[in-house]
Amino acid sequence: MSSIFTKIINGEIPVYKIAEDDNFVAFLDAMPLVKGHTLVIPKKEVDLIFDMESEEYKNLWAFAQQVAKKVKNAIPCIRVGVAVVGLEVPHAHIHLIPLNKVEDMNFKNERLKLSPEEYSEIQNSIINS
Amino acid sequence: MSSIFTKIINGEIPVYKIAEDDNFVAFLDAMPLVKGHTLVIPKKEVDLIFDMESEEYKNLWAFAQQVAKKVKNAIPCIRVGVAVVGLEVPHAHIHLIPLNKVEDMNFKNERLKLSPEEYSEIQNSIINS
Repeated sequence: MSSIFTKIINGEIPVYKIAEDDNFVAFLDAMPLVKGHTLVIPKKEVDLIFDMESEEYKNLWAFAQQVAKKVKNAIPCIRVGVAVVGLEVPHAHIHLIPLNKVEDMNFKNERLKLSPEEYSEIQNSIINS
Repeated sequence: MSSIFTKIINGEIPVYKIAEDDNFVAFLDAMPLVKGHTLVIPKKEVDLIFDMESEEYKNLWAFAQQVAKKVKNAIPCIRVGVAVVGLEVPHAHIHLIPLNKVEDMNFKNERLKLSPEEYSEIQNSIINS
């Protein structure tokens, strides 16, 4: 069940990291719907988020809450939306998406193409918020 | 900040209820994207889910986990997706959406029009799963 996220967790694929602890990691989505689109994942490989053990599942959401507050502080938006879809990568992941309109959360939308400088700027603004 | 959800919590607007405890309630969305589309809300009025007190926030997600497992058992789907958008009703709510394709979670899609009999059948199948 190893996926691209395992390579990210192992440091084999570089990402713009936002936060990390022993069990979870948050980083900027490489195919963002909007600026500040962030993924939060458990380090433990699990496909379906609702199959996670209860305590770890709750701690994942608590970790996501802290990340979402930082995203909200850094990125101009009405609120930070949440999505768990997971039809493409079989490793549970939470999308945190700064929203200004409902359409911002349509996963069929064309993704932003950001430069490394833009990613770094967003990363730093969230980390330092 | 009272919204339609307050009236639902107070029993002033009838819903097809899936689960309830002292703090949370789950019921079928009246404007479902797909069959089995369920809302999970805290009874306490709060607009932004990430502004919830940490313990109550974690308990809300734990409650949603139990509901999602029942939805998954009852409704044919690849997985149960999660969305928190909240641009329309200022009372935190989690959408649980049985997914077979990414497009099932597009909130711009036309909503299903179900008969009371269809709602009751879905409600019972989830409750009894």
